[in-house]
Formats: sequence, C-alpha cells, structure tokens
Amino acid sequence: MDSGQKLYKRAKKIIPGGTMLLSKRPEMFLPEKWPAYFSRAKGCNVWDLDGNKYIDVSIMGIGTNSLGYGHEEVDNAVLNTVKKGNMSTLNCPEEVALAEKLVEINPWAEMVRFARTGGEANAIAIRIARAATGKDNVAICGYHGWHDWYLSVNHNSSGEDLSNHLLPGLATKGVPKNLKNSVFPFHYNDFEELKKLVDHQNIGVIKMEVERNYGPEENFLEKVRALATQKGIVLIFDECTSGFRETFGGIHKKYNVEPDLAMYGKTLGNGYAITAVVGKRSVMEAAQNTFISSTFWTERIGPTAALKTLEVMEKEKSWEIITNIGLNVQKNWKKLAKEHNLTIKINGIPSLASYVFSNNHNDYKTYITQEMLKKGFLAGTSLYASIAHNENVIDSYFNALDGVFLNLSKCERGDENIFSLLESRVCDLGFKRLN
Amino acid sequence: MDSGQKLYKRAKKIIPGGTMLLSKRPEMFLPEKWPAYFSRAKGCNVWDLDGNKYIDVSIMGIGTNSLGYGHEEVDNAVLNTVKKGNMSTLNCPEEVALAEKLVEINPWAEMVRFARTGGEANAIAIRIARAATGKDNVAICGYHGWHDWYLSVNHNSSGEDLSNHLLPGLATKGVPKNLKNSVFPFHYNDFEELKKLVDHQNIGVIKMEVERNYGPEENFLEKVRALATQKGIVLIFDECTSGFRETFGGIHKKYNVEPDLAMYGKTLGNGYAITAVVGKRSVMEAAQNTFISSTFWTERIGPTAALKTLEVMEKEKSWEIITNIGLNVQKNWKKLAKEHNLTIKINGIPSLASYVFSNNHNDYKTYITQEMLKKGFLAGTSLYASIAHNENVIDSYFNALDGVFLNLSKCERGDENIFSLLESRVCDLGFKRLN
Repeated sequence: MDSGQKLYKRAKKIIPGGTMLLSKRPEMFLPEKWPAYFSRAKGCNVWDLDGNKYIDVSIMGIGTNSLGYGHEEVDNAVLNTVKKGNMSTLNCPEEVALAEKLVEINPWAEMVRFARTGGEANAIAIRIARAATGKDNVAICGYHGWHDWYLSVNHNSSGEDLSNHLLPGLATKGVPKNLKNSVFPFHYNDFEELKKLVDHQNIGVIKMEVERNYGPEENFLEKVRALATQKGIVLIFDECTSGFRETFGGIHKKYNVEPDLAMYGKTLGNGYAITAVVGKRSVMEAAQNTFISSTFWTERIGPTAALKTLEVMEKEKSWEIITNIGLNVQKNWKKLAKEHNLTIKINGIPSLASYVFSNNHNDYKTYITQEMLKKGFLAGTSLYASIAHNENVIDSYFNALDGVFLNLSKCERGDENIFSLLESRVCDLGFKRLN
Repeated sequence: MDSGQKLYKRAKKIIPGGTMLLSKRPEMFLPEKWPAYFSRAKGCNVWDLDGNKYIDVSIMGIGTNSLGYGHEEVDNAVLNTVKKGNMSTLNCPEEVALAEKLVEINPWAEMVRFARTGGEANAIAIRIARAATGKDNVAICGYHGWHDWYLSVNHNSSGEDLSNHLLPGLATKGVPKNLKNSVFPFHYNDFEELKKLVDHQNIGVIKMEVERNYGPEENFLEKVRALATQKGIVLIFDECTSGFRETFGGIHKKYNVEPDLAMYGKTLGNGYAITAVVGKRSVMEAAQNTFISSTFWTERIGPTAALKTLEVMEKEKSWEIITNIGLNVQKNWKKLAKEHNLTIKINGIPSLASYVFSNNHNDYKTYITQEMLKKGFLAGTSLYASIAHNENVIDSYFNALDGVFLNLSKCERGDENIFSLLESRVCDLGFKRLN
C-alpha cells in the first residue's frame, strides 16, 4: 500500500469522514488506490507522498486554481505578506483595496464583506438579505454549503424516509427541526415552480447558482430578476463556483442579468482561502443591524492572494483561456466517445466540464480513474480547466484516454466485463445538484 | 489625518461596519485617531501605514498571537508550505498529523475536525452534538460566535424591546425567528439556573467557556460535568479564546474537568487561520450522519501553522511565560492604580488581563489609548500577553502609563476634566459576555 493510503487509514480513525471536504474523499475517486495526499503541487502537476508525479486533469482543488497550482505571482505576494506579518491588532489594508476592486468588477454593487470559506459567505449573504427584507423565507436553487439554514430544506418533507429527497445526498442530522419550512428549493429553468413558491411562501430571498450543468432557457434569469424586483425580493447569485470562469466576474455578466448580492469564492484567491459577498448598498447596509464578525476574517493572506489573483486574471484574460480549453476538451470527449461507440452526455460550463456515460457511469468512471492513474494522471469524468492545462497536457491526456475508452467499448460490446477489469470497488457517489 | 484614518474612511463607504471583526473597529479604540491599519507586525511591534512603530500592549490580534507576531519558526513553516503549494485535488497530510497531536494533547478525546474560523468551529460542534443526541436544545454560557444558532438566543424574549437583553450588544436581524427557544443562556457559576434549564427545556447540549473574567466557585465545573453525564447531555467547552493560555491545551486541564467536545482557535496557528473541534469518538462519529464540508478547510497553511505553533509552544512552555507576564501586569496595574488613588477591578485569566475603572471607565480608557498612542503604544485597558512581551517592554509600558494615570488621578480629584483632556469622542462599547 502506498504512503497516501496508509496515512488515510490513520485519518479515518481520527477524523470523522477522513477529510474536510466530501468531494476530496479518496473513495469518491478510487477506493483503496487513490494517492489521497499531496506533498507538492505546481501548475497542473501534483506529487503524492511517495514522490510520484501526476498530471491533474480532474477537479484542480475542486475548482480553486484556475491559474494553476502555485502560481508564481500570487505565491510571491503571499510570501511577502507572510514576511511582513499576517495578523495584528490593526486591520490589513489589502481588504479595502480588494473590496474596491470587486465593486469595480461588479458595477451594480457598492459594498463588500469577506469571509474565508464558501459556506460562510453563503450564510452571511442569507443573514444580510433576511435582515434587509425582514422575511425569513428563502427560495434556493443549487448548492450553497453545509450550514443549517440551507440543509434545513431536507426537514420540509414530513416523513423520515423522505428526509433526503429535496437535496439528495446531503445528510441533515443535527440541523434544528424548527427551521422546517423556511427554505424552499426550486428546479433550474422551472419559473412556474419558483413563482408558486413566491406566491404562497412569503419568500424574501431568492438564492441560486446562475448556471451549472446547463444554461437558462426561455429567459429564465430575466424572469427571475423581474419577479424579484416586482415583489421586493433580494436576488442572490451564488458565484462561488462559477465566478471568474467565463467573464472577469460572475457568469451573470454573460447573461446581462444583475443580482442584488453575489458571492465569490473558489477561484478568487487561486487556492488561498478567501470568499466575498458583494452587494447593493441598500441591502448590504442591513449588515449594520446584525452581528457578523470573526477573528480570522482579519488575516492578511486571503485578501493578498485575491488582489494578485485578480490582477493576473485580468492581465491573462484567464476566463477566456480556460473556457477555450474546456470547449476543446468537451469537443474531444465527444469525438473520442463516438470513435469508440460510447454514448456520453457532456455537462457543465466549459471550464467545469464533465461527461456522463449513458450506461454504467460510475463503474466506467472508476475504471477510467484506475487506468489513468497508472498512466500518471489524476482523472475522472470531470476536467476543471486551469491556464496550466496547455495543448501538450491536453494532447497527452487524450492519448492516454484513448486506450481506456477502447477497453470500455469492449465492455459495451460484451467482450469484456467491467467488474473483472476493476481492481477496487466502485467509487462513491457525491450529492446531486438541483440544476 | 494619517493614512490609516484616510483608508478607514474609504473602508466605511464600501464595507458595512468598516472591518471584518467588531473588536477591530477603530472606534472601539480611539475614534478618528486610531492608526486602523498595519503595514508590518513583528514580535509585539506593529507599524502603521505611515511607518510609525508602536508597541502592542493591547489585544495582540485579539489573542491570536501568544508567540508574538511573525514568529520565525511558524512563518518559515508557512513559507515552505507556500513554496510547495497550498492546495490540490489531493488532501494535505499536515491535517492528519495535527489531528493526532490534538488527540495526544487531549487524552479524553479521540477525533478531530478542522475549520478556519471560530464561528465555524462552534457551529460544527453544535451540529455534531445535536446529531449525536437527537435533541436540538442547547444551554450556553459565554461568547460563541456570529452564527444563527447562537444569536437566536435573543429571539427568546417576547417583546421587540427586549430582543437584545440576553446577549447584550449582539444585534440579531436576519436570524430566523423559528429558532426561538432552542438555545438558552445561563450565567457562569449559577448552577441552579442551568439545572432549571436542563429540567424544563429538554437540553441535549451544554456549551460554555470554562473560565473568562473570573474562575469557577463551589465546584461549578464538576457539578456541570456530573449533570451532563447524568442526563446524557453533550458537554462542550469553547476553548477558542482560553486554549493554550494556562496549560498546553484547554484551560479545563487546570480544573481537571473533561468535556465531551472542545474547540480551539485563536492561538492555535499563531495568527494563521485554523480552528479545531476535538471530541470523544462516541459523539464525533455523529459527524458521519450530517453534511459538514467546505473547500477551504482543505488548504494547507492552517494545519502547517498549527503544527509548528504547537511545537514551539511545547518547547517554550509559552503558557507559563504568558501567564507569568499576565500575573505581573495585573499586579503592577493594581500597584499603579493604588499609587494614584484610582479604583480599578482586575479581570480575566492572567494572559488575557484587563481592568475596569470603578468610575468613568470608558472615558478613562479612551484617554489612556489617546495618550499611550502618542508615546508609541497600542494600549487600552486590556493586555493580551505574548512571549514577545519581555521585561523591557512591560517596564517601558508601565513607565508610560504612570504619567497617564497621574492625569486620571487629577480628574478623580476634580483638578482636571476628562472631557477637556479628550481629543476625540469616547470609544464605542463592545458586547458583553455572560461570564
């Protein structure tokens, strides 16, 4: 057994769940075989604890590093901040510069608050929006973190057996039952469903991902915006995942629809912890009437990294680069699948591309991970693009994938059995999104 | 106006509240005059944006830096981690080593989860404890962050006018009203009050600070522990602020009373963002049945800093050093006050020492801050000790304070008017604790 799996065995004894992020559990990739831990990461390369080098053509830190791992300019800014001191009784000036930059990028907004995780940014936005409207009820569409306010959706249904049906895969023990019927989910592109919620549930806030696996249809976003405006509802776009992937800012820029609040995370600090709530003054000022305060939101690395990341993104137009890489990857997946008579469906915005097999998806995905790992790749059926994924990397990835798809085509024809090809059990499923 | 105040004026236009932490608002120290922002911090020295150097004999990053700012060994470990890469699709091995170290330090515990802020650690602990007991109701004593579960205490009272009386100074707009009567406060050392809550409110969890402004009386902690054990209640000690200040671990070690869960924050990473929930396996395993997951909890700087901080603390026995500094400071405050016929009351565990004037406290505190700033000190009426506060620093502090106390004694005698001495308005009050 390699050092990573040995360490993970120790981790599972001492850390419930083994990791801090569900999506980074080794069982989500390749049970018993995934390298699990890294010693070094640079560009799109990752080294495991035994010094083996892999090319990461999977989730790139679950989408944090659109400039690649260890980007020199960002890291140098952070190194400099560490040398000057990360913390003091006084505040760090970088947070003001970052707030001003985010307002410049979001011309519909005037004010900003920062946190260090996406769950926090989501909870802050909900608190501020509820304070601004005086209404507790929220309509949501998408993934918005681990906090009570969000998971309480799964308490809405009456029977225990149904307790997970609204947000599939998100377990909710310990979320106060009193929160039942305060947050209501709606499906992406289902405007009538949302309208019914607004008409019957005294909704004060709508929070949604702008786009995820597929885009808006029949002016969905414009209709949501008009409804919110008409009813005095605060409209929040959760851009934690989608931000800076298709525009220099939120993906809402692409659709020309403006929210009242937006959250950014993931890409914002290129792998350093920083998240932001950006919003209209009329809503954000409500933060003055509610206690939102945390010691470590004053540390200096987060704003330092974000300021430099935004500078590099703007200079490189990184959102264009990663979108083009993603479009190319999506096209090549289709082509390769067709060549091997495999039926796949492409999902996601280009720089968060993924595909799903119409048959035996999870079995095939596990096999891909297993075989690609042997060839030196961290790979599943998603590729979150970074500017480090140059043409050579993508070419070598598809060259390697070709042989794997060939074997899958044999399974499809019945010439091979996928379960005799698998050297571990099939990977675990994650939770599902509502869009 | 100095550069710090100029920048703060910009901040207030763009950041509701101006800062990320209530306790770091310049108005909490010296309105219009406080330097507000730092360019550099090292040891117990802080440089403002104009290059002025101050000795920090105030809250030391609100208690984050018990090894002093920019501790060389901790910073070198962080620099090394930045150079190796802060993030990847794989996990960082440092979190496992840190979990093992925290279990070693807390022999009553077997499992650990990490977050990056104290509010998060508090919310995680509550979620896990509620999941473990199946009960939503919580009894609390102390300050436990900004999250909904905690602030909802202020919804318990019926009338709007009373909405702030349970946690004075903590505004709660936007906290769901449904959470009313799920969290109940009790006062420190009032065992009967707690017992009544347990008897009548179906309490599943007791969360408290072990000690803050004064210590336990009449075996208070032992009684709480026995009650929790007898009733099957999960007992949580919030050691975010008190941890590693009097023992190598929680302050509960001093009293020989063990909780079921404990949180650490503040000092744990010596100024880098990292917090931890440590607990018994029987309780912590409940985390498997509830979704607690966040991308930035997988970044590497936090666990790196904490591992090295613990190593340095253990080597230096920093908790003994800062406790002795604090005891000396408390003794000298008393002495100086007596010399100048000022009546003060000393509060806090030694390394979080503070004093309160029996007359005109806030006016006098503002004057102290104003005059000490002129002499090159960041100082109020609290001194959070770090190992960087050596004898020379403390001597120079008391030499400077002597002249200020002299003028306050003139005010006390009626020979001077405090308001004619003040060059700004009086500083704002913070929120109060229940212990």
